[in-house]
Amino acid sequence: MRILIVNPNTTASMTEKAAIAARAVAAPGTEILARTSTMGPASIEGYYDGAMALPGLLQAIRAGEAEGCDAVVIACFDDTGLDAARALASVPVLGLCGSALMTAGFLAQRFSVVTTLERSRVLIDNLARHYGMAGRARVRAADIPVLDLEHPGSGALERLQAEIERALDEDGAEAIVLGCAGMADLAARLQGQYGVPVIDGVSAAVKQAEALVAQGLKTSKRSAYAAPLAKSYLGAMAAFSP
Amino acid sequence: MRILIVNPNTTASMTEKAAIAARAVAAPGTEILARTSTMGPASIEGYYDGAMALPGLLQAIRAGEAEGCDAVVIACFDDTGLDAARALASVPVLGLCGSALMTAGFLAQRFSVVTTLERSRVLIDNLARHYGMAGRARVRAADIPVLDLEHPGSGALERLQAEIERALDEDGAEAIVLGCAGMADLAARLQGQYGVPVIDGVSAAVKQAEALVAQGLKTSKRSAYAAPLAKSYLGAMAAFSP
Amino acid sequence: MRILIVNPNTTASMTEKAAIAARAVAAPGTEILARTSTMGPASIEGYYDGAMALPGLLQAIRAGEAEGCDAVVIACFDDTGLDAARALASVPVLGLCGSALMTAGFLAQRFSVVTTLERSRVLIDNLARHYGMAGRARVRAADIPVLDLEHPGSGALERLQAEIERALDEDGAEAIVLGCAGMADLAARLQGQYGVPVIDGVSAAVKQAEALVAQGLKTSKRSAYAAPLAKSYLGAMAAFSP
Amino acid sequence: MRILIVNPNTTASMTEKAAIAARAVAAPGTEILARTSTMGPASIEGYYDGAMALPGLLQAIRAGEAEGCDAVVIACFDDTGLDAARALASVPVLGLCGSALMTAGFLAQRFSVVTTLERSRVLIDNLARHYGMAGRARVRAADIPVLDLEHPGSGALERLQAEIERALDEDGAEAIVLGCAGMADLAARLQGQYGVPVIDGVSAAVKQAEALVAQGLKTSKRSAYAAPLAKSYLGAMAAFSP
Amino acid sequence: MRILIVNPNTTASMTEKAAIAARAVAAPGTEILARTSTMGPASIEGYYDGAMALPGLLQAIRAGEAEGCDAVVIACFDDTGLDAARALASVPVLGLCGSALMTAGFLAQRFSVVTTLERSRVLIDNLARHYGMAGRARVRAADIPVLDLEHPGSGALERLQAEIERALDEDGAEAIVLGCAGMADLAARLQGQYGVPVIDGVSAAVKQAEALVAQGLKTSKRSAYAAPLAKSYLGAMAAFSP
Amino acid sequence: MRILIVNPNTTASMTEKAAIAARAVAAPGTEILARTSTMGPASIEGYYDGAMALPGLLQAIRAGEAEGCDAVVIACFDDTGLDAARALASVPVLGLCGSALMTAGFLAQRFSVVTTLERSRVLIDNLARHYGMAGRARVRAADIPVLDLEHPGSGALERLQAEIERALDEDGAEAIVLGCAGMADLAARLQGQYGVPVIDGVSAAVKQAEALVAQGLKTSKRSAYAAPLAKSYLGAMAAFSP
Repeated sequence: MRILIVNPNTTASMTEKAAIAARAVAAPGTEILARTSTMGPASIEGYYDGAMALPGLLQAIRAGEAEGCDAVVIACFDDTGLDAARALASVPVLGLCGSALMTAGFLAQRFSVVTTLERSRVLIDNLARHYGMAGRARVRAADIPVLDLEHPGSGALERLQAEIERALDEDGAEAIVLGCAGMADLAARLQGQYGVPVIDGVSAAVKQAEALVAQGLKTSKRSAYAAPLAKSYLGAMAAFSP
Repeated sequence: MRILIVNPNTTASMTEKAAIAARAVAAPGTEILARTSTMGPASIEGYYDGAMALPGLLQAIRAGEAEGCDAVVIACFDDTGLDAARALASVPVLGLCGSALMTAGFLAQRFSVVTTLERSRVLIDNLARHYGMAGRARVRAADIPVLDLEHPGSGALERLQAEIERALDEDGAEAIVLGCAGMADLAARLQGQYGVPVIDGVSAAVKQAEALVAQGLKTSKRSAYAAPLAKSYLGAMAAFSP
Repeated sequence: MRILIVNPNTTASMTEKAAIAARAVAAPGTEILARTSTMGPASIEGYYDGAMALPGLLQAIRAGEAEGCDAVVIACFDDTGLDAARALASVPVLGLCGSALMTAGFLAQRFSVVTTLERSRVLIDNLARHYGMAGRARVRAADIPVLDLEHPGSGALERLQAEIERALDEDGAEAIVLGCAGMADLAARLQGQYGVPVIDGVSAAVKQAEALVAQGLKTSKRSAYAAPLAKSYLGAMAAFSP
Repeated sequence: MRILIVNPNTTASMTEKAAIAARAVAAPGTEILARTSTMGPASIEGYYDGAMALPGLLQAIRAGEAEGCDAVVIACFDDTGLDAARALASVPVLGLCGSALMTAGFLAQRFSVVTTLERSRVLIDNLARHYGMAGRARVRAADIPVLDLEHPGSGALERLQAEIERALDEDGAEAIVLGCAGMADLAARLQGQYGVPVIDGVSAAVKQAEALVAQGLKTSKRSAYAAPLAKSYLGAMAAFSP
Repeated sequence: MRILIVNPNTTASMTEKAAIAARAVAAPGTEILARTSTMGPASIEGYYDGAMALPGLLQAIRAGEAEGCDAVVIACFDDTGLDAARALASVPVLGLCGSALMTAGFLAQRFSVVTTLERSRVLIDNLARHYGMAGRARVRAADIPVLDLEHPGSGALERLQAEIERALDEDGAEAIVLGCAGMADLAARLQGQYGVPVIDGVSAAVKQAEALVAQGLKTSKRSAYAAPLAKSYLGAMAAFSP
Repeated sequence: MRILIVNPNTTASMTEKAAIAARAVAAPGTEILARTSTMGPASIEGYYDGAMALPGLLQAIRAGEAEGCDAVVIACFDDTGLDAARALASVPVLGLCGSALMTAGFLAQRFSVVTTLERSRVLIDNLARHYGMAGRARVRAADIPVLDLEHPGSGALERLQAEIERALDEDGAEAIVLGCAGMADLAARLQGQYGVPVIDGVSAAVKQAEALVAQGLKTSKRSAYAAPLAKSYLGAMAAFSP
């Protein structure tokens, strides 16, 4: 089984971190392909970055399918482009936020997501509602620029820990979801430290991908995720028409 | 006051139709600028088209702001790119779906949206939930390819009428929302025919834009719609970095 | 275009304040008629005042329609009598709360309403749920008797400011809605002070009224808002039978 | 114990029917006082009738409290004036809709309300949402003018039966709630006929009133239902100031 | 009328306390039968205790029906076994949580439940959602082991009072629901102390039971609560087959 | 990795069918242990069967943990005992309904569950709400006694197919969830027949169990799922005290 992980931002160190997390949980026999988008923002912080990452993300998925992958993981906690990718691809596509929230839901009744910036907090809170987790998941921002997670001395870990402690204390959180792909390397350590489940979205999504493939399940092509209709695309997007 | 209408697909006849609808309702003194995206799909039918329309849409908005517009309307009923545009722009941005649903909500307690294709039905139903209209709005698809709305003899009007009649009969709809920018020219006629309010999203959004500008209101830049952070964008998106 | 603003309480200074706010945002060519109810409470603070204001409010609307108005605004943030007025009138009717919440929803994802007394807080919170804004709008009371807003030295402004500051700090509010018609004169000043959108319900409702009239839209008379049936009314209400 | 039943319309035969239903379920020692409003509409069909019934209703409640009643039932399925009455009265106040829906909820997981006119259907559906029963209760209209229920040969019973049969067949209803005070005399017969619980709102509300009094419980006067503040009321409402 | 109260834990002093509360509110002519489960846990604190209490609870209900009771109250605030009991019994069955929340809903718009242990807090919060009270009821735990409520010097009352004070202060609670059957003896005292309605679930459920019986209403046997189908049960459960 | 599948009914052929489905999707290296409850009902059809299955189910789980399993699957679509099992066990516990609904949610926006009997339909619909899938999942009953699924000539398959066809036609279902453990052998065939994803709960739950174990995640023991407190259990349950 081959699972393609696409990092929709252009920062290769984040891709590598995601690939390490993915390989750590993948079943024997699962091959992890990791790709970094080649067009778009260096990090995804808010709606504009997320929108402008889409062409690069979707073309990486298209290329990955041509290479023969069995499932795709979009390595961004905002689940940017997830619906479009499901319409485009013939193989299953997983996002981090949906996968992590569902995973948390099997382990705890109430839990908190800790993400990076305030601008991402409401975005993720809206995703939680969309996924039916409105009453179970609280979302918090630790005020960490995404790329600070790539730099050990940036103070990012300390801010994250402080916010997790507030979630445990003020929210009564029974589990913690790490709300950024760039936190994938921290889950085990934080779980050990706090004694509650700490869920990393990359790991969660990879296992969901494996689960779907093992069951012989693919995205429904009936209604919402029907394959894009053939039509002309103009300008810089002309090469990307369905 | 100058309101910029951006058609996120590349079909100029749809832009023109939207501009006519906009000018028909605009207040004296409001100038309507209408722009057609120059990169992306010829019509937006489903999630993939919607995603690939974003760079063209967002750059048209950026250009429009540079020209001095006071508000922006995204002329697509899927509200594609709306959150990204609100983060990008310093002026208010309106979508058709949100504007039309709110307008319907001032006139009726229960109403139905009639859109084009089945693949757009669930997408719009999800928007209705997101906007808090889940219990009030039903969404129906009339099985009309978007560009058929540009061709009088295509049978599109007859299908739309048949679906409106089902909405009135089966849903108890008190009002009808036309769920595609390409239906903007049909609202008055259908309202006359059926005797219930028939709402066109372009008209609704233009009036909301005027309303916000008249009140001196702009998109909040606190939290969710904070201005994009300066950062490098790679590849074909490099020119579009914030 | 003539828009009738009816103040459902009997305090003329509040009517005048609403009229000034209305005229400040009205389009050229819109005439604002402002009427003060002649029977009922001097201010609306809670459910009983709101109920006893209805005959005076509804008869003022009936009289206003006979004078030839094109739309009606009920100048009370409780939206008291709104459904009855929509059933009664043939022209569109707007309330402050619904109009202001929808307006805020175009500018911000999460926002707070600051109203006067604690007894109005839950009432408005129930309206926010009814309008589908439960997850987006927080409601707060600043402990201000309504008529204190008519008296500059009453300390009302200071209490309002303190509550807005709590909303920004504790709720993460991206915008503020002023939850009383008597605050209409404060919006611009507070928006300047706090740097987030501050929405006044009178202004919002007037612009919604204009928007509906410009679009040729009226309240649906199918189902919920069907015109009252002819029937006898007894006693003090005999003169007000449909 | 004395329970006051106020019919907010002016039709004495409906009051009498409610009183008979109330006495049939009242505990030994409970005295039922039944009063007909003396000002307002002959029947409540839609929002305008409901609004114009309020002064008569609220003054009858005030008079009833002065006579020494222990609880109040508002004998209209629209729960018109319920919140205002709870603010006004010092004794508990029950409405038919809330009481009947809660009663049905103890007997069945999914049930249907059958009311009179289409214009009341959405109004009651909104009440069901407000009371937290949105996913459990379906509301249907049998197209019966309210006062036809006072006339045996009007065909009203047959229409009601036909609609109940549709509810059982199409909704999978496990119980039926009769959605008008004027149907109070039909519950036992219909329950016998259909073999599912058939709930009458008058009976349900009377028993809730007894239950609250027996427990020594009164409406909370903290926040939403705080007693009306003393203030001047003008015009025809002057006599009704708090 | 005979109402059977079954305490699903095996602690007779809690049964006795519930019986006293029940008799204090029962109508003249209502006989209260109180039974203590003879198999299962000494107290119900969390899901496992609740599950293991079911066979004892359900067999006590079956025996009670054979004795001729007219309705059943399950004297545990978790409403454990309520749906199974409704399917099993031919008479109405009430739980404390559902009964108390509905009772509170007739008296207040927002209220708080104060229960014993943190492990019960989320369980009850989930019940509140299930009953449609998600937006109205807050649930708090006072950190009291259930059986401490049987021991006056345990400090339980003081903890309960402290938590009620937090609910009044922080939640704006308009009423308090006592979230454990073992608190039944404290309601009157606390209501006197705090001046807001304080609701005991045992009392509330007994009055609901009386109300249903007086109305001639029984659990619907259509769909969800259909009588168990005859089938073989194995092992220790063999004697309990339907 | 060892996954314990517990069939909470006492019918060994259903256990065997579940084990076959489980082994078909399990990763290399995963050992499937399948156990049949030895006390309780032969099939679970409605709430009473579900309640009386709990002691047998929970003791099988306790025994399985003692044998060294890494995760548990409760092989019943009602998710009976799931919360109690999570509190009891130290390893993760999965139910079929939750697992299948989440799996469907990764593949489709709207889908339908087809279960056996009408009495199970509302029960599962309530689960869907509890899991946040209220607006996405429709539940249907095909009128099939559970044990008919064990008998090829019973007509069960035909009824199931007919109901699936109604779901596709009337609900616009994009995927189908099989709502009974006894249907586990039919998923592949029906997926082939209808061309939409068909999800079996046993398979889905086994893969979720593997996913959690691979990520090093266990049920949170903070708050709702805290380990049962030591206490005495009486009577037939004495041996099962925590």
